Amino acid sequence: MATQGQFITCKAAVAWEANKPLVIEDVQVAPPQAGEVRVKILFTALCHTDAYTWSGKDPEGLFPCILGHEAAGIVESVGEGVTEVQTGDHVIPCYQAECRECKLCKSGKTNLCGKVRAATGVGIMMNDRKTRFSIKGKPIYHFMGTSTFSQYTVVHDVSVAKIDPTAPLEKVCLLGCGVPTGLGAVWNTAKVEAGSIVAIFGLGTIGLAVAEGAKAAGASRIIGIDIDTKKFDRAKDFGVTEFVNPKEHDKPIQQLLIDLTDGGVDYSFECIGNVSVMRAALECCHKGWGTSVIVGVAASGQEISTRPFQLVTGRVWKGTAFGGFKSRSQVPLLVDKYMKKEIKIDEYITHKLTLAEMNEAFDLLHEGSCLRCVLDMQVQG
Amino acid sequence: MATQGQFITCKAAVAWEANKPLVIEDVQVAPPQAGEVRVKILFTALCHTDAYTWSGKDPEGLFPCILGHEAAGIVESVGEGVTEVQTGDHVIPCYQAECRECKLCKSGKTNLCGKVRAATGVGIMMNDRKTRFSIKGKPIYHFMGTSTFSQYTVVHDVSVAKIDPTAPLEKVCLLGCGVPTGLGAVWNTAKVEAGSIVAIFGLGTIGLAVAEGAKAAGASRIIGIDIDTKKFDRAKDFGVTEFVNPKEHDKPIQQLLIDLTDGGVDYSFECIGNVSVMRAALECCHKGWGTSVIVGVAASGQEISTRPFQLVTGRVWKGTAFGGFKSRSQVPLLVDKYMKKEIKIDEYITHKLTLAEMNEAFDLLHEGSCLRCVLDMQVQG
Repeated sequence: MATQGQFITCKAAVAWEANKPLVIEDVQVAPPQAGEVRVKILFTALCHTDAYTWSGKDPEGLFPCILGHEAAGIVESVGEGVTEVQTGDHVIPCYQAECRECKLCKSGKTNLCGKVRAATGVGIMMNDRKTRFSIKGKPIYHFMGTSTFSQYTVVHDVSVAKIDPTAPLEKVCLLGCGVPTGLGAVWNTAKVEAGSIVAIFGLGTIGLAVAEGAKAAGASRIIGIDIDTKKFDRAKDFGVTEFVNPKEHDKPIQQLLIDLTDGGVDYSFECIGNVSVMRAALECCHKGWGTSVIVGVAASGQEISTRPFQLVTGRVWKGTAFGGFKSRSQVPLLVDKYMKKEIKIDEYITHKLTLAEMNEAFDLLHEGSCLRCVLDMQVQG
Repeated sequence: MATQGQFITCKAAVAWEANKPLVIEDVQVAPPQAGEVRVKILFTALCHTDAYTWSGKDPEGLFPCILGHEAAGIVESVGEGVTEVQTGDHVIPCYQAECRECKLCKSGKTNLCGKVRAATGVGIMMNDRKTRFSIKGKPIYHFMGTSTFSQYTVVHDVSVAKIDPTAPLEKVCLLGCGVPTGLGAVWNTAKVEAGSIVAIFGLGTIGLAVAEGAKAAGASRIIGIDIDTKKFDRAKDFGVTEFVNPKEHDKPIQQLLIDLTDGGVDYSFECIGNVSVMRAALECCHKGWGTSVIVGVAASGQEISTRPFQLVTGRVWKGTAFGGFKSRSQVPLLVDKYMKKEIKIDEYITHKLTLAEMNEAFDLLHEGSCLRCVLDMQVQG
C-alpha cells in the first residue's frame, strides 16, 4: 500500500482538555513500530468510559488525547515481527490485551494481560514509550491502547483481534466493549445456571447484555432495576422478565428484592458504577450462595462497603473486566456467534452518526433512550 | 435411665450479666421436648465467640445465659419424634444446624440451615419458644443453640452430630467449632489447589487449622502473618512455611505480600475478625484470580471496605461459617479423620481445666500461648 511506512494524515476527534468539546483535527499517525499494527477505523461506538475520562474525573486521564475503545476496522500495515495479522485483515481493537505469554495470560484463570498495561495506562506505545499521534509535532496521547476516535490508529499487536471478514463492521464494532462485558459477566464470571434468579442493576447496554446472557443461560427470573421506567419496555426484548423502580418504594432495594424472591437472588450484577448500588446488589443476594458481580466502573477513589457478616453467611463478591473474555481468542468467536444469530448486536444500536458529529454523540450518551451510538468514521460531514 | 423425663439439677457456668465473672450455679435442666435432645456434656472448650458475647459487645447477646458451643458429650434422653440419636450415643453439639429439609439444606450449595435459627438466635427452643434452663424458676437463656458450659444441655435434634463412640471426647470436642472452621475454609470455601500460595492473617486456632488444611491441599507456600512473633515457632508444626510480622515493616502489609509473592497470593484467610485486616487480606491477593476468605468474626456494626477496582480486576471476596461443613453429616467424618490420624486435634489443646475453673479459662483465651483450653465438665473442683 502507498501509505505503508509513511505518516498518515487523517481526521480524528481530539480531546484537548477535560470537559471541553472534542475538536476534529488533522492528525499525523506514525507508521507502526515493532509489534504494532496500524488500523483504519471504519466504525466506532461511544462508551461511558470515554465520557468518564473526557469529563476529567479520571485521575489517570491524560490530555490531549484521542479517546475511543469500541470499534472495528481494517489493518492498514503492520510493524516488524507482527505475524498474526496482516494488511487487509478485518479487526476489532481490544483495550484488554492478550499476549499469551505473561503470567496472567498463562494462568488459565483470568482474561487480564500484563504485557502492555504499563504503556497503555499512560497513553503511549511500549516500543519507544512515545505516542504515534501528533499534531504539528505535538504528541497526542493514546487512550486504553485503542484510540478509536481517529480514522487511523496504532495499537499493539496483542491488542487486536482478527475477525471474519464478512462480518459487518458497523455492527460488530460493539464487540469491542459493552456487549461482551455483559454477556461474559454472566457466562464467564458468575457462571449463571439454568433456573437461577438474576437481578440486574442498571438497564443500559451492559445491563441489557447481562439480561441477554442470563436468558441464554436459562435464568428463570430476570429482574431489572432502574430509576428510569422508560427503559423497561425495551428491556423486555433482551430477556428481563420483571421490573423494579427503587424510587417507587420506601424499603431499601435489597430488602425489597429479598422479599420478592423468598430470600434473595442467586446472582446480581451492578451495571452502573455506583458504589451504593454495588452494596445493594451484594446484599440482595441469597444467604448461602448468592453471588454479586460488579460490572460497572466506579469513579476513582470511591469505595464499596458492607458488613462482613454478608460474606460470612455465604454471599460472594466478584467483579469482571471485559466479561472475562480473552480478547484476541474470544472476540472472533463472538463475531461468529453474531453471524449465526446466536447473540444480538443490531438491537443495541440506537443511533448512527459520523465522526463530525462526535460531540452530539457524547450528548446522546446521557439520554436514557440511547444505548449505543455508532459513528461512521470515514464520513466527515 | 432414672433421669429420663425428669428435671435434672446440675452444675453450669452462668453468665448473669455482661463482662462479669461467670458463676457456677445449680441449674435445673428440663427434659427434652419434641425434636429435642438432652446431652450430658463431658468436655467443652472455649472459643472467642463465647468471650465476645460475654463481653457485652454482641448486641444480640442475652443475659442471663449459659455460653459454650465447642463440646462433646453423651445423649441422656431424647424427646418425642427424635429418631437419629438415642440415649447413650456419643455426640457433638452443632451450633450450625442441619435439618436436611429447608431451602438452604436442600440447595446443595451451603452448609447454613434455616430451621431453628429463629429460636437459637434469641436463646430459646423452637417447640415452645422457652428455655430449658432455669434457676429457682428463673429462665436462663440458651446460647448458639448449644450452651455447653453446663453439665447437661438441651439442643434441637438438628443440632447434634452422632459420632464414633470410641473417639476420645476430651479431644474431639474441638470439632464443634474452630478446627473444622479453619480446615473447611480451605477445603470447602476456597478450594485451595496444590501449588497455591496462601496467606493466613492471625495464627490462633483457626489460623493454624487453615495452615493445616492448606498443607494437606498441597499449598507451595503458606505465609503466616501475626503481630505476636512468639506464635511463629508453633505455627511451623501446622504447616506455615514463612512468617511476616506487620509491625516490623513500614509498608502496608498488602503491598509487602504482593512484593514477596510476585504479584500477590492465590488465597488469603482472615482469622482474626478485624475489618482492616480483612481489607488487607483481600488486597494482597493476586490480580485476576486471588480469593480472600473471611473466617474471623468482626464486632457488630463494623464494615469492610475496598475500592471496587480490586474486584473488577479479578479478586474474589468470600466468607465462611463453620468452614462450609454440613454439621450433622460431616462432623462425624472429621472425627473419623482424626481417628485415622489424618487431621490434628491434640496439638491445639494447650490447657486443660475443669468447670470450676471457667473464669481462669476465659483469662487464658487472651494469652497468645493459649490455643484451646478444654474443660472437664464433670470435675467440679
